[in-house]
This record gives sequence, structure tokens and C-alpha cells, in this order.
Amino acid sequence: MSRPYLLVSNDDGVTAKGINFLVDTLRPVADLLVVAPDSPRSGAGCSITSVRPIHYDVLLSEPGLTVCSCSGTPVDCVKLALNVFGERRPDLVIGGINHGDNSSVNAHYSGTMGVATEGALQGYPAVAFSLCDHSPDADFSPLAPYLVDFVFKAIAAGLPPFTCLNINFPRRPRFEGVRVCRMARSRWARELSPCPHPRDDRYFWLAGDCDELEPDAPDTDRWALAHGYVAVTPTQLDVTATGLIEILRNVL
Amino acid sequence: MSRPYLLVSNDDGVTAKGINFLVDTLRPVADLLVVAPDSPRSGAGCSITSVRPIHYDVLLSEPGLTVCSCSGTPVDCVKLALNVFGERRPDLVIGGINHGDNSSVNAHYSGTMGVATEGALQGYPAVAFSLCDHSPDADFSPLAPYLVDFVFKAIAAGLPPFTCLNINFPRRPRFEGVRVCRMARSRWARELSPCPHPRDDRYFWLAGDCDELEPDAPDTDRWALAHGYVAVTPTQLDVTATGLIEILRNVL
Repeated sequence: MSRPYLLVSNDDGVTAKGINFLVDTLRPVADLLVVAPDSPRSGAGCSITSVRPIHYDVLLSEPGLTVCSCSGTPVDCVKLALNVFGERRPDLVIGGINHGDNSSVNAHYSGTMGVATEGALQGYPAVAFSLCDHSPDADFSPLAPYLVDFVFKAIAAGLPPFTCLNINFPRRPRFEGVRVCRMARSRWARELSPCPHPRDDRYFWLAGDCDELEPDAPDTDRWALAHGYVAVTPTQLDVTATGLIEILRNVL
Repeated sequence: MSRPYLLVSNDDGVTAKGINFLVDTLRPVADLLVVAPDSPRSGAGCSITSVRPIHYDVLLSEPGLTVCSCSGTPVDCVKLALNVFGERRPDLVIGGINHGDNSSVNAHYSGTMGVATEGALQGYPAVAFSLCDHSPDADFSPLAPYLVDFVFKAIAAGLPPFTCLNINFPRRPRFEGVRVCRMARSRWARELSPCPHPRDDRYFWLAGDCDELEPDAPDTDRWALAHGYVAVTPTQLDVTATGLIEILRNVL
């Protein structure tokens, strides 16, 4: 395969360790365009910026590597990259590496998955990489060989339209292997934590815990991660609940 | 049926005409808790606020109707409502009525769908209502009887876990009927519009056009809307691309 061209963004911001580890790992084997938020956008989901202009700066421009910061969301970054730097079509759009777990329902809130979703909506193969470790100084080194392998396999195999891959790595020095999974059902709970203010008791931090709804189901991403495997969850962007169509036709 | 209890939010903000029309329409037949953003959050998707506290104010508290504004996103509003005003379980979580079309891929970017998604993720039946008219002064009056009908049918029939309804109304004085649809495939294009700045050409507005990828498919939400029907798109929150699992097991 010729040297691939990769569009990379994230939600932790352009200076985060995760995205820079990804770039350092892939640069020897690929050309890269990085357009990432100028500061953290954790929990940005697929949000876009509609009420103010978005702005970018070119931080680095070398043969095979351009790095830009953008004032917008992760999805904005992908849109900007494809529209403003669109002279070469990327072979793959990559979100990450995220600092933190984007498996199960977290995918809905994840800006890293927002990058992959937008890439796929725009017609490109797309993957999101996340490490289940929120620490800014998380150790990404065990991921290196997997990143290269996933990138080349995704490009070679291709992905069907309106799909992308949500790939999560457990926090551990080595992995048991790779498992292709379905999204586990889970539910965030106890999410509002008081943020004491001297004159106002209506400030809260959003935090909480994620309750597993099917912890023993071995075909899920959560099970794979809990047992030391890399979890690959194929994700569809046509979110029609097909099985409900006929049922609702009889009800509505 | 006894008088239902409805949790309502939106992404256009608590003062928008759409949400207030919804409240006025449903108030005679239901008790309502409204927790909506203090200003517009169009394009908020399922984003959440993680780097600053969220705050709310009670704007109105009467028997059967409480209205709060919240500094956060549409999803934050639902989380806040369920955690802070959680003494009574809502029978239905409602997003909208949105000023603008949330059919097809717009569902991914929609804060109105963010409300319904969060409601369903938290285990409640949930619907999103949108009118295909961006105008702040859009005419919502043709929707009134449909809103009441959909709300009571959704509560009576229930919805399976991890699903919600994305209901879009065309902009017209009367509708041809209701169609249960799948999400049409479409793609936003030409999205970056220069925002001239006297000393910097790297400012852009996000705008563009949505290209239809299957304009003639009569089972889609876009077709229904283009032909004057109310489009009901059942939506699933388990976004696993099930058909890809076996394929990927052979590739990865």
C-alpha cells in the first residue's frame, strides 16, 4: 500500500498526550493532517458551533505533517479540515487517542466518537481510539503496534458507508487480544454533585457513576475491557430502530 | 389514563416559541417540568458540560407546571431535572419543539434529539418534536392536535428500552398524515463559509447545504417531509453495527 493520508482530531485538545502519541506512532508510516480543538472538549459528542465563527491556526507545517488548532468542537475540526484542507482526500479519519473510556453509552457523549461519526457521515472510513485512563499522563505505549495494525487493516478492508469503529483499550501494560463486540447497555447515575457556592445552592458538577446493566454478557465491549481485551465496536450511523417500524405503524 | 407527568427540554432555549407552544398545548392535559437551556444551544447533540459547574434558576413554579432555566446543554438539562427534581418519575421525556429540521443525519447534531436520547438512556420513554422551519416566529399551530396524540400514544404503548422517537413536521398549514420512516441518508456539503475579518482569513461560519443521497426512497423521513407527511423515525441507542461483527472478526 502507498503511504496513507490520515485526518486526525480529538476532544482532549491539540496539546493532549493521546493525540500526540498517535501522531508520533503513525508519522513514520503515514502522512497526517491534524486539526484538533485548541482546548479540551470532553463530552462534546457530535456538537457543532452554529452561533459564532470558528477559527484555526496552523501550528506546524512540515512535509507529511500539518498540525492546526481550531476554536470549535471535534466535529467542527473535521468539517474545517475537509473543507479548507480538502485538496487531498484522507484514506482514514481518526479520533483520539482519547484519555478515557468511550465504550458502551459513553459513545453518545464522546467527542472522539464525534470525530469518527463525522468522518463516516462525510463518506470516509473512520475509527475512534480511546484508552480507559483519564489521566493527562496516561501511558499509551502498549497501544502503539495495535494503532498501526488497525489503521492499515481499516484502510485495506474498508468500512461500509455510514459505519465507523469505536476501539477502546483497557488500562494495562499488555492486552489479552482483540475482541469485536457489541455496545454494552449501561446507565449513568448519581450524576449531579453539589458545587458549593457561598450564596447559591443551585450549582452542580456533572459526574456520577456508570452502572452496568449487563455485566456478565461476554459479547459486549465492557466485558472485553474488563477482561483485558481491546474492544472493537462496529458502529452504525443509520440509527433507525428498524424493528419498531412495523410495530409503530399499528400504533400511530 | 391519569394525568401524565412530562419532562420537557429543548436546544433553542427556555424562551423559544417552540417549547412554549408545546407547554401551552400540553398543560391542559398533563403536569409539566420544563428544564431548558438559558440561551440557544442549536447543534448541541448529546454534548455534556464537564469542565464547569452547571447552574439552574426556577423561573415559574405553579401547580402542574415548573419551569427552570439551566446554564448547560440539553442533555445536562435532562440530567439535572432527573437528579434534582427526581421525586416524581416522568411518564415521558420530550425534546422540542425544535425550530428546524432534525430528520436524517441532522439527528446526530441535534440537541433536541439529545434530550430524547438522554431520556431513553435514563430508562424513560422519550420523543423529540421538530418543525422544519428555522424562523424564531415559526407557526406551530398545525402541530397542536398531533402533539397531544403522540404524547398519549407514546405513554400508552410504551417504547422498548434504548429507543426513542424522532418526530419531524413539515412546514405547512396542514399535514397529509403520519408516516413511520427510516432515517434518510444525506450529507452536509460546502459547509465552511468565510467570515471576513480585517486582519485574519481563518475565520469561518459553519453553514452549507444538505445533499440528499436517496431522494426518491419513499420509506425515508426526508421523503415523508417533502411530501407533506409528519415523519416518525424510531431511533435506537444501541448503535452497534451488528452485521459487521462477524465480518470484522475475520479481518482483525
